[in-house]
Amino acid sequence: MSNKGLLVVISGFSGVGKGTVVKRLVSEYGYSLSISATTRAPREGEVDGREYYFKSVEEFRNLIDYNGFIEWAQYVDNYYGTPRKFVEQEMAQGHDVILEIEVQGAMNIKKQYKDAVLIFLTAPDANSLRERLAGRGTETEEVIAKRMRRAKEESLDMDVYDYIVVNDDLDACVSTVNSIIVSTKCLKANNLKFMEDIKEELQKQ
Amino acid sequence: MSNKGLLVVISGFSGVGKGTVVKRLVSEYGYSLSISATTRAPREGEVDGREYYFKSVEEFRNLIDYNGFIEWAQYVDNYYGTPRKFVEQEMAQGHDVILEIEVQGAMNIKKQYKDAVLIFLTAPDANSLRERLAGRGTETEEVIAKRMRRAKEESLDMDVYDYIVVNDDLDACVSTVNSIIVSTKCLKANNLKFMEDIKEELQKQ
Repeated sequence: MSNKGLLVVISGFSGVGKGTVVKRLVSEYGYSLSISATTRAPREGEVDGREYYFKSVEEFRNLIDYNGFIEWAQYVDNYYGTPRKFVEQEMAQGHDVILEIEVQGAMNIKKQYKDAVLIFLTAPDANSLRERLAGRGTETEEVIAKRMRRAKEESLDMDVYDYIVVNDDLDACVSTVNSIIVSTKCLKANNLKFMEDIKEELQKQ
Repeated sequence: MSNKGLLVVISGFSGVGKGTVVKRLVSEYGYSLSISATTRAPREGEVDGREYYFKSVEEFRNLIDYNGFIEWAQYVDNYYGTPRKFVEQEMAQGHDVILEIEVQGAMNIKKQYKDAVLIFLTAPDANSLRERLAGRGTETEEVIAKRMRRAKEESLDMDVYDYIVVNDDLDACVSTVNSIIVSTKCLKANNLKFMEDIKEELQKQ
């Protein structure tokens, strides 16, 4: 009922299907998707402005200096950031914006945007996460072990999030994340003005 | 993801359509509905065990003494209460239970069941509430004025609730309340055990 758009942060274990869930949320429910900027090199098939905005280190640092990001972080020598302009314009127009970012970024968002909703996607248990990370049997044990170590680290940060959603069935997961967004808009804290107005109107009746 | 059912309290302005919303939630989503007990006389068409359990004052007081209600209150010389047995059995079996009760009851529920979710249904504004209360032009101005005074009092209690949902379009309202129930189950606070388990499993991998 609030006119301002909501900021929705989606994180989760590597391999849990975040990207697919986010794509479905955008195509089925019309949410706006924030595209991150990065200094890492594009991988095969990646298009500038679709997967990421690809920037040089100099361009990226310049954007930091000009307050161009609502959050940014450095992972393994590369910078990643969420461009401020798109997010703030969309929210001002009442559009809900989805950010698919890592936990460090999620924490930075929560500090600045108290109304932001933070959602962590998980597999139903560690074994099924391992199965997904193993993929179609094309990965070496070494790669799987490395990914599982990463998942172990990621699990320690789950507490930062407001909601935990199991991606067991894709349709159900997409629908649940949408439910979280819908319900967040009905939270009392997001409707203080509405409540004030209707109370005032009723006093005058 | 928690195995225990959720307690869902639905209140709202008189005339806002609570009863219809609750019926739809039960028939479409399979939620369990708690039937209140009351000492007021049945109205025409009301069936014992469907609208209410109709009790004598003596029976009701006896049930109070035996801890038979999870909450009870007195309005205009009549007692109203939520039978404990049904609610606790359903929740233990993992069923979500809907209570359609007044604000006094809602506050009592929140004190005892911290995980309960409290939802207040409202019209989009005071004028449309007045129109609904006026009904099809069959009510006297006096009756409408009395109902509006009641709405004015009820509006002061909206702050007790977790969520505010506008019942403008019935389908949208039913779907939104369902979204609130779905999302509440994903709240971090309702998944502490799940998070602990997956962290532990990942440590062992």
